[in-house]
Amino acid sequence: MPISMFDAGPARLIVSLRNLIAILDKAAAHVAENKIDPSVLLGARLYPDMFPFTRQVQQACSTVETALARIAGVEAVKHDNAEVSFDELKARIGKAIAFLEGIPPAAINETADKEFALKLPRGDVRWTGLQYLFGFVVPNFYFHMTTAYDILRHNGVRLGKLDFIPNPAA
Amino acid sequence: MPISMFDAGPARLIVSLRNLIAILDKAAAHVAENKIDPSVLLGARLYPDMFPFTRQVQQACSTVETALARIAGVEAVKHDNAEVSFDELKARIGKAIAFLEGIPPAAINETADKEFALKLPRGDVRWTGLQYLFGFVVPNFYFHMTTAYDILRHNGVRLGKLDFIPNPAA
Repeated sequence: MPISMFDAGPARLIVSLRNLIAILDKAAAHVAENKIDPSVLLGARLYPDMFPFTRQVQQACSTVETALARIAGVEAVKHDNAEVSFDELKARIGKAIAFLEGIPPAAINETADKEFALKLPRGDVRWTGLQYLFGFVVPNFYFHMTTAYDILRHNGVRLGKLDFIPNPAA
Repeated sequence: MPISMFDAGPARLIVSLRNLIAILDKAAAHVAENKIDPSVLLGARLYPDMFPFTRQVQQACSTVETALARIAGVEAVKHDNAEVSFDELKARIGKAIAFLEGIPPAAINETADKEFALKLPRGDVRWTGLQYLFGFVVPNFYFHMTTAYDILRHNGVRLGKLDFIPNPAA
């Protein structure tokens, strides 16, 4: 049977964004328990020219918000990436969830074959809604969510696959 | 308009698996140029209790093969995870691509509402095909692909987002 763009895409990303909030809770508990300056984890990166943890979380949010706004034809929320604490990052993720929940599914669902002309850092591209959502937004979102998780694991925060994907049926 | 499970899921994963082969080519070139023993990168991990690079690639493949075999109701290919070189890992990814390409899309597309009773390491779960594919398989695949990429970046291999997502329209 056919499925909808919204159910396979944004609906799943909302679940993953909630999981990311729970991962940040564990990171905040870890630094509190071990008397670590939170800025050490927030600024940690896997290589000097990669984004630090804070920016990985911000990119996970903005990747989804920017692209879904374009796909749905609504105004994207502007952010100044000024978050400097786990609580502020959790609030940022909460805004991304609220934004996705506020998009009418029909505005997403009608775009599978619609062609989008996009100006991206990589150059100008023309992709259909389906290519854009499942070939770019979804992999890009999980890239940043996973790298945020990997930065925490690399720094000793106790996390496992059940934090990354607790319950797809939720 | 409605879309199909296959077009939003396996069709995109095939593109990403091809991208992973190209990433391995760059890793192999990096060790050759810098006279690094390939086993150093193949065995590298981000934390002592995380999987090393080789196993991340194997898990990316087996996550997709095992789950799509269950969803489509076909026999999964058995692997012994014996790959010990970049070339062998590339061949393993090639087998995963061939397996996905060999599944009739209709066998995937009819399962969106079908409930699957699964015995997973996390315990017994009951998920619909849509939940299983987009809520578990896709995030899990990108988790392992990204962690493989992050291990290479952490070890100085020159890669960028254009290696991870070169062209969703492909």
